[in-house]
Formats: sequence, structure tokens, C-alpha cells
Amino acid sequence: MRAALSSTLKKVSAAAAARRPRVAFVSSASHHHRSHHQSNKSTKKRKDDYILGPDLPDIWATPGSISPPAESESGATLAVDAELAQTIIDGKSIAEEIKLGIAKEVHRMKDTIKKVPGLAVVLVGQRRDSQTYVRNKIKACEEVGIRSLMAELSEECAEDEVLNAVSEFNQDPSVHGVLVQLPLPQHMDEDTILGAVSLQKDVDGFHPLNMGNLALRGREPLFIPCAAKACIELLLRSGIKLKGKNVAVIGRSNVVGLPTTLLLQRHHATVSVVHAFTNNPEDVTRVADIVISAAGVPNLVRGSWLKRGAIVIDVGTNPIEDPSLEHGYYLRGDVCYEEALQVASAITPVPGGVGPVTVAMLLSNTLDSAKRFYGIS
Amino acid sequence: MRAALSSTLKKVSAAAAARRPRVAFVSSASHHHRSHHQSNKSTKKRKDDYILGPDLPDIWATPGSISPPAESESGATLAVDAELAQTIIDGKSIAEEIKLGIAKEVHRMKDTIKKVPGLAVVLVGQRRDSQTYVRNKIKACEEVGIRSLMAELSEECAEDEVLNAVSEFNQDPSVHGVLVQLPLPQHMDEDTILGAVSLQKDVDGFHPLNMGNLALRGREPLFIPCAAKACIELLLRSGIKLKGKNVAVIGRSNVVGLPTTLLLQRHHATVSVVHAFTNNPEDVTRVADIVISAAGVPNLVRGSWLKRGAIVIDVGTNPIEDPSLEHGYYLRGDVCYEEALQVASAITPVPGGVGPVTVAMLLSNTLDSAKRFYGIS
Repeated sequence: MRAALSSTLKKVSAAAAARRPRVAFVSSASHHHRSHHQSNKSTKKRKDDYILGPDLPDIWATPGSISPPAESESGATLAVDAELAQTIIDGKSIAEEIKLGIAKEVHRMKDTIKKVPGLAVVLVGQRRDSQTYVRNKIKACEEVGIRSLMAELSEECAEDEVLNAVSEFNQDPSVHGVLVQLPLPQHMDEDTILGAVSLQKDVDGFHPLNMGNLALRGREPLFIPCAAKACIELLLRSGIKLKGKNVAVIGRSNVVGLPTTLLLQRHHATVSVVHAFTNNPEDVTRVADIVISAAGVPNLVRGSWLKRGAIVIDVGTNPIEDPSLEHGYYLRGDVCYEEALQVASAITPVPGGVGPVTVAMLLSNTLDSAKRFYGIS
Repeated sequence: MRAALSSTLKKVSAAAAARRPRVAFVSSASHHHRSHHQSNKSTKKRKDDYILGPDLPDIWATPGSISPPAESESGATLAVDAELAQTIIDGKSIAEEIKLGIAKEVHRMKDTIKKVPGLAVVLVGQRRDSQTYVRNKIKACEEVGIRSLMAELSEECAEDEVLNAVSEFNQDPSVHGVLVQLPLPQHMDEDTILGAVSLQKDVDGFHPLNMGNLALRGREPLFIPCAAKACIELLLRSGIKLKGKNVAVIGRSNVVGLPTTLLLQRHHATVSVVHAFTNNPEDVTRVADIVISAAGVPNLVRGSWLKRGAIVIDVGTNPIEDPSLEHGYYLRGDVCYEEALQVASAITPVPGGVGPVTVAMLLSNTLDSAKRFYGIS
């Protein structure tokens, strides 16, 4: 039932270096941004701080004198109202860049304390999409030298068997992240099984205590859900500032919409949440500087929904059947890409946008967990 | 240090009945709303369900055919674009109505199981405003027959003494709600002390696990923070539907803004959160059907910030110094009331709006906790 799939440290440096970001803007802006961040602080910021952003207290301007926050920060930024730059935000390249950094840290960990991070995946049933997702995660682990373990259980197994697998991984000191691939079979209670994952190993960040700590100012979650973290990484690494920006988040799922909204608010964006019951959603998105869509509806967001110069992050990964293709389907985002290209100043493609960075964030969470476990700062 | 202040059941029925809502609209709409809610369900809904609202899954309309949700529900509603009704939402009357219901339930509990709910308050230091708030809460307990206890500690006491007081109340089976009055003295860690309150008695609802459960779809918090619950009660009891409405929440505090936003989303409102870093906040509020302000800035929200016909809930309770007055100050909301009256279709006054209903919600949470403890549905 359980097999160690990989504990070898593959050298990804060369491969990743060969795949430098294709969009020069993205990687250079990223460097600007990070150096700015560090210069603002006397101590070197941890990666987590960087992602969580400064959680400043609200000090309101006195009535009548409210003015936009001063844009004194230097560094490359996307001028959302300027002439369209039509940047394709290259998620693959950004993911490679992140994985390169993770691989280095894993390597160093192995050299210094003879340990590597471990990620355990629980997969129940034979869903082809779940199998693909799990395979991608395990492959990514191999790339950066994270040890991966998997428990594969049959569709018909009892809930207790899943709970036992989770419990075994919870107790295994070589495992620092435990992930239950969703969706689970109908006869199982998702809340019970997700709730059984040790808080210290909940690299998906779906535990309600984690979510509460993400929501509450002054508290820090142990893990930020990967897709939400990916959206913010894509924006920050593209040199896009979030403070004071109007952001429309489409969709309010526990897995993407909700944590993305909470994380954006930590970065002081002004967030509006659009959902299926929103009247005239296009009225909300049309005034947004940044639109993040995680609705799961192909082509929901038309060109007419976007302000000229808007930045578009498309989390949607919707399979569209096409018997003429090898796999029988292709992937479409929530955004009508061709139309958006005419209006947006920057956009993530599907596939190759949020997806690969989400996997990289899972590796990042696993690394962080291992560092916490071994007391490495 | 600790004294039982009241365990007598006062008869509030007569007093409350004498103070029927002054604004006829508010109480009649309230009845409409409730009867509608009940007719939709075969089983009688619990009060909590009513407040939490139906948490429907998001089923998106297909692209291009998105239309406003059908307004098939009957019952009185505020037509926000109709001629200005200039309803003053009378928080005092609504609070009395709620307390009347609570008093009846407490009475029944005493009759049937010879127990009453108990609320324990921990007050540290001599802040006059805190003393006033605590006094109001204890007085409200007396009105409905809830037993109240108080631990008063000096400003200079050690954090451990506060933790001991909390722990004692946690263990006392006659106490169903434990509340630590904020703010605490500077030398104490608020998170530690609030985190020490038993999850089952956290009637303020500030525990991160509670907040996570409020945020996550499919989960239910044990308690909803009182001010947030009060805002939604004021709206629902005034016959205002939330589903599909554009709501601007001003402020994102852990205590008010955040839980109000999360609760509004459970009611399928489209929520935008405005804060101190929002560029041109008036652009956001001006398109909102409902504006809820919890910024703590007197007169922040001008008449020009509001759409004609908007509904305004003012959570702000800002003391303005005035030596000519007996107490040396008067209270002002976040909203410039006189200006808002010219534009809004409904508004809560300060004082007499959200405040009294917030206290009523504390009693409601304490009653719910006692019912849960004694297994009463």
C-alpha cells in the first residue's frame, strides 16, 4: 500500500537554468522587488514574511484628506493604465525559478544535517485527473530532492483505512507534509479526513485553525494554501504591487477563492469577491486593477469584463472534451484568453500559469515544514 | 476578586412589550422575513441557522447568460432605489425584541432543568470605557435572567493571574460564556489570554478556530462575533435581503470588519472591503447597496460617499470630547449622520443602533452555549 517513490536528489540546477524566464520583464522585476523588500528591513526577511506581506495597522487619514497612498517605492511596476504591454506571465518559468531555490535549500539541508524534507500523499480511488495531479506533485518532489511517499487506497476502502494512512504519516518523523488528494469518494467525510492531518504537516493549509490564523490580523498561519500563495507569488514576482490596488476575486472556494482573498488583504489590496449570486459581476471586475478568477467556468470572464490595462490571473483549469486529441480533452481557463489579450496588460496562460507555481508552493510549504521541524531558520 | 453579581430572573416581558419598535416597518418586515424562512424548510430552523444563512454551493450561470438572481421571495423588502424612505433602524427596539425572546428561553430552561445560562467577564484595569461596557453587559444579563460573574483584576496584575481567572471560569460548569474585556494592559499578550478561553465558552467568537470555521464553507463556528452578528440581524430584521447585494464593509478589524465580511458572504452578498490603504474609498462605497462602517473614525463616511437609497449600518462608536456635557464626551458614529440622512434609505443611529444589538447577541451566544452544554435543541 505504501511505497517510497523517490528519495534521490536530482540535480535540477542545470535544467532549470536552461529554462530561464522567457519574458525578461518578469524575472527582472522580480529582482527589483525583492531587493526593495530587503532594503526596507534591517534584518533579512524570511520567505514566509515576504509572502505574507507586512500587516500594517490601519491608520485612517482624517476625513476629507484621504488621498491615494504615496507611490514612493522604486523598482519596476506595471503601470496598469499605461499603454498595453501585453505581458504573458510565464508560470512555468517562475515555477522553475522557485524550484531552483528550493532545490538549493534542500541540498544544503542534506549536506548539513543529513536530512531531506518528506511529503506524503494519500490518494484514494482511480480518478484519472487525481492520478495526474499526484504524479505531477511527486515528479516535482523528485526535481528538488524532496522525498515523496504515497498511500494508494482503493475507491471502496473504508474511511478508517484512509484515517490510518494519515495517522501513520502524521507519526512518521521523516514526513513533514501530509496531503490528501481531493476529491475523496462520496462515501467519505472530507472534513473528518482533512481534520485528521496533523496541523504541523498540513501543507495544503486547509485546516480551519490555519485558515483562521490567515484571516486574523496579528496571527500567522503555519501554511498558506498553495493556489492562493501561487497567485500572490505570480503578481509579486512580476513586479506588481498590491497595496491599495482594487482586486476582484471571482469564486469563493475554500481551496482557492477564500485564502486568496485573505492573503490579498494582508497585502493591503482592496478586495471585492464575486460569486455566482453576484448581480452583474462584470460591473465589479470592470473597475478592478487585478482580476483573479477561480470559478471553474471556462470562458466566464470576457474581454468586456476587464478594464483596459488590467492584470489577469486565471486559476481556472477546466478540461474541455475533444476526441481528436490524444488525451481526449484540452484545458481552458476561466478567462476568454483571446479576448483578454486585447485588453489586459498582463495575463497568466492556462496551462502554464498558476498551475506550475501552485505545485512549487506545495514544495515550498513542505520545505518550510521540514525547516521548522529541524529548527532551521 | 470574584463575585456573583446576579442570578435572579427579572421579568422583562412587560418592560420590553411597552417598548415596541417605534419604526413599524422594522418589526413587521422582521415577521415577514422569518415566516418566509420557515416556510422554505420542512423542519423548524434553529436561530443559529437563521443567522448563518443558507450556505448554498456556487453554481455559475453559463457565460453570456448571467442574469440577476430571481427575486421570487415574497415579503417586505427595502427597495433600495425607490423613493427615500429614510428609515431609522432602531437598534434599541430590535435589541429589546431579541432580549424578550432570550428571556423567555432562559425562563423555560429554569423551569424545565432548573439551570440558567452563566456569563463570566474578566475585567483588567480601571479604564472607564471598559467599565461602562462591562456594566452594560452585566445589566443586560440581569434583564434576561442570565447569571453573571465577574473577575476584576488590577492594571498591574501578572498575566498569570488573568490566565488563572480564565481557567477557573473555563472549569466552572455553571459558566457557559467567558469574555475577556479588551483592551488588555500593554504588558499582557492578548493572543495568549484570548487563546486560553475555552473554545466551548468563547462567546465573543474571537478564537482563530472559530474564525476559520466562520470563513470556511461547509463548516459552522460555535460562536459568531457579536458585532458582526448584530449588523446582519439589524439588516435581516429590517427586511433587507443580502443575497446578491453589493456591500461595502469599511474596516477590517478582527473584532468587527473581518467577521462581518465573512458572515455577509455566507448570506451571498457581494462584499468589498475598504480600509485605510484603499485608493478613493468613496468610489467603492458609492456603488454599494449597503455600507457597513467599522473604521473607528468619526464622520469618515460623508453623504457624497453613498449611493441614493443606500442602507447604512454604522458600527463606529467614537467618543468626542465635550467638557460641557456631564460625562465630558458624546458619541459619534463613523458616518456623518446628518449628510447620510439626505441620501440613505435606511440608517442606524449612534448611539442606539448597532451597540444595543451587539450586547443582545452576546446574550444570545451565551444562551446558545448553555443550550449546547445541557443538550437542549
